[in-house]
Amino acid sequence: MKGDTDMRKLKISGYAYTLPKRTVEFDGCTRYRMSDDETLLDLAVKSCKNALKKAEMAINDIDCIVYAGAVGFQPIPCSAAILHEQIAKGTSIPATDICTTCTSFVSAMDIMSYLIDAGRYKNILIVSGDGASVGLNPEQEESYKLFSDVSTAFIISATEEERGIIHSSQYTFSEGAHDTEIRGGLNLLPPNTYSDERKADYLFDMNGVQILRFCAKKLPALFKNFINEIKELGYNGYESITAVIPHQASRALPMMMKKVGVPDEKYADRVDEYGNMVSASIPFMLAKYLDEDLLKDSDTVMLCGTAAGLTCNFMLLKL
Amino acid sequence: MKGDTDMRKLKISGYAYTLPKRTVEFDGCTRYRMSDDETLLDLAVKSCKNALKKAEMAINDIDCIVYAGAVGFQPIPCSAAILHEQIAKGTSIPATDICTTCTSFVSAMDIMSYLIDAGRYKNILIVSGDGASVGLNPEQEESYKLFSDVSTAFIISATEEERGIIHSSQYTFSEGAHDTEIRGGLNLLPPNTYSDERKADYLFDMNGVQILRFCAKKLPALFKNFINEIKELGYNGYESITAVIPHQASRALPMMMKKVGVPDEKYADRVDEYGNMVSASIPFMLAKYLDEDLLKDSDTVMLCGTAAGLTCNFMLLKL
Repeated sequence: MKGDTDMRKLKISGYAYTLPKRTVEFDGCTRYRMSDDETLLDLAVKSCKNALKKAEMAINDIDCIVYAGAVGFQPIPCSAAILHEQIAKGTSIPATDICTTCTSFVSAMDIMSYLIDAGRYKNILIVSGDGASVGLNPEQEESYKLFSDVSTAFIISATEEERGIIHSSQYTFSEGAHDTEIRGGLNLLPPNTYSDERKADYLFDMNGVQILRFCAKKLPALFKNFINEIKELGYNGYESITAVIPHQASRALPMMMKKVGVPDEKYADRVDEYGNMVSASIPFMLAKYLDEDLLKDSDTVMLCGTAAGLTCNFMLLKL
Repeated sequence: MKGDTDMRKLKISGYAYTLPKRTVEFDGCTRYRMSDDETLLDLAVKSCKNALKKAEMAINDIDCIVYAGAVGFQPIPCSAAILHEQIAKGTSIPATDICTTCTSFVSAMDIMSYLIDAGRYKNILIVSGDGASVGLNPEQEESYKLFSDVSTAFIISATEEERGIIHSSQYTFSEGAHDTEIRGGLNLLPPNTYSDERKADYLFDMNGVQILRFCAKKLPALFKNFINEIKELGYNGYESITAVIPHQASRALPMMMKKVGVPDEKYADRVDEYGNMVSASIPFMLAKYLDEDLLKDSDTVMLCGTAAGLTCNFMLLKL
């Protein structure tokens, strides 16, 4: 078990999400896609401002800015610094990127919770977002119709109350490293090697069937493990969980939830309404559940999902 | 102060670096540049294998793989997963990227030390490396002649001994966000928008004069702060530091060290021999100092540097 068992106290002080204005419809499903006059950075900035407002904080209350997206703004500098320029220019707030692709938010919260617990930082702004639409391949129908653009911002804060991360774990199985890819754009295939002939190498490429097959093989044991681990901590399995928020990976979500044993009434499935929002998928759905009072203070929520890599994250959080 | 004051115990169990075979000379300075038959991933894999050998560990002894480079292998999946496939396929070791560009190694060690301290992980493999040569602009002479390619791997481990991170801090000043950039390749300027006319946007772009001016303004106070902070912890300033390993940013290093008050005999300057190695600059020089017995067990080393962003990192480490 690559997990941890002591509660790391923290609370969510504020959160927000920003959807692009434009929607498209595919087979009765709604997808959010940026227009030419919107950028991922615009969405991120707006999310941060609204999260600060909800938390009744100013930027100077933030001790660290973490950008936890799959594909950032530009290769250099890190995305947190590019965002810092828009929301924190003139301050010295440290800015860092943490990435595990689609589960970046969970990884970032998991990792940074230790720094809150140790007293290094009091308030951390974690921004997750992706603008998948700019990199989709129209010739790959499944992925072309699946993704939505969005940015989310969460402020996690130190607290003395009995709330925070009860348990978390992460696994990476690199047998799946090439099932979800954008190969071109960084060091192995730099952007200046781009040619129209090799266009597909610079666009999103997903082998949905292969991923599902791999997940069906790996995930049931991992979910069982996690539930057993929380039982050892005195929690009564799914009975003690208010809601499960899985990464909204695809329309196969109900099939996969059944396979891994998550009870039907427990999990969020809004794939038809919102699609796969990459790194923002889990925090967006968490924000929706909070907004809709489907999750309230002192409830217990399980965040989980698979990411390109293939990485799996699990987290049990007491709100 | 965005710092921390309790020693987070850890030790370096193993380390290695891998330089590309090819060297070039500019104005009497040596630079290491990958040939067509070498990739950054090749260098990283070799570093990891040699670091494991030095630590007398197998990959299964590693609890977490962190890739801490400036420009990773490809946009999706994260670089740690791509590396995982080469060195840890078949395992479930979690893989995560942490990035603050040139100081990514220091940030990753700083952040992950909390997870070691809390008992989450015992042994963490931190891999830093960059292959700047594939993205340099021949028309920008200063940066074209400055960079070297290399990969480094460090294994940091839990220990009961009185050694580890004594103090660390990080700051980001986004007034400098555009002084060091690669604008194209990710979401704001995706690789499929590449054109020869805008080639420069997809290559490394550095305003050396501007960075120096900004650093000359900001750094003296930050170095003074850090030294004051360690004095408060009972350390006798530079007297108690065996060596200062700064990011080998440019040939202006001695001028900058003088400006910030680091004594001449304390700091590493091998810019002529190796150049700026981006994220691997600090860990490479740390490895050299360890190999050359310029640093030994129980010595105290200060790691520091500026990164694109502009981010500044400081760390005092007892070996």
